[in-house]
Amino acid sequence: MLKKNIVFVAQSLDGYIAGPDGALDWLHAIPNPTQEDMGFLALMDEVDAVVMGRTTFETVCGFDGPWPYQKPVYVLSSSLSALPAKAKEHASLLSGSPVEVLAQIHAEGYHALYMDGGRTVQDFLRADLIDELRITTIPVLLGGGFPLFGTLQQRMAFSHSRTKVYLGEVVQSHYVRNRIL
Amino acid sequence: MLKKNIVFVAQSLDGYIAGPDGALDWLHAIPNPTQEDMGFLALMDEVDAVVMGRTTFETVCGFDGPWPYQKPVYVLSSSLSALPAKAKEHASLLSGSPVEVLAQIHAEGYHALYMDGGRTVQDFLRADLIDELRITTIPVLLGGGFPLFGTLQQRMAFSHSRTKVYLGEVVQSHYVRNRIL
Repeated sequence: MLKKNIVFVAQSLDGYIAGPDGALDWLHAIPNPTQEDMGFLALMDEVDAVVMGRTTFETVCGFDGPWPYQKPVYVLSSSLSALPAKAKEHASLLSGSPVEVLAQIHAEGYHALYMDGGRTVQDFLRADLIDELRITTIPVLLGGGFPLFGTLQQRMAFSHSRTKVYLGEVVQSHYVRNRIL
Repeated sequence: MLKKNIVFVAQSLDGYIAGPDGALDWLHAIPNPTQEDMGFLALMDEVDAVVMGRTTFETVCGFDGPWPYQKPVYVLSSSLSALPAKAKEHASLLSGSPVEVLAQIHAEGYHALYMDGGRTVQDFLRADLIDELRITTIPVLLGGGFPLFGTLQQRMAFSHSRTKVYLGEVVQSHYVRNRIL
């Protein structure tokens, strides 16, 4: 099966995935009366596993509502030796470099991966292991917080594949890594 | 006449307006055989003057080709006492806080303004004096450089007004400041 690592993430207009003190309320500031999923369910159909860092995992565990992922979840952590008992029904723990982590996940038979969480996205981008970026921009300037992108040693070109506006306010663009340029 | 300050600027996917060492070549990385102006001429029709910082002014003066602005240009600088003689045909010099600068420009009869340059945009945003953001995103991660947005003391909500994809690769979104939320 084709190996593919897809980032699907929401950012503020100024490029933060969380505001000062980790604030996430702005993600739900746009009224969504039709429960528009903004491409999340289509993504879930395309991937066979989800990869995220410990911070994101703990955030997701704290959300109200049913467990959001219908696919196996891998949690990356260099500090945890085991996941809390309650979390084990949802996820397994992995550690190592991005290359090592991917090798383990591929060995378990999962190849199309949804990469989530700020630190994870930055680490995998630095290793040039991201094939697609699907970025949803919420029209607010947060003025500070945790940035989606970190520093890189070299430029990385992408090709735009599609843009869609949801709810009249939220712009989602998909980009594919262009390693030829 | 309606007072309005419009930012029209290109950024990388990771939010830089210039790469490390001020690199700007990536702005022209997407082939543009039809000389698509990407909304620049429409903007020029909407504004009656252009406001930019000294760094941007010097950059524009170094561009090949004819002078790009068909409207009066104000250059903001706290260090220059006069513009170089050659530049005076294109621009006048102003200094002061964003509020003071605007008062001077309005007093000269110009009210719809195109705000350009990184430092200028950040200073005017901090003073909540930007009414529209028109952001053109080029699909490249630069990994470092001069960021479009700086830190803010408080959130600022915007409303999305339109998004257009140019040349299949370049996504331009327009946002209007929403001071009610």
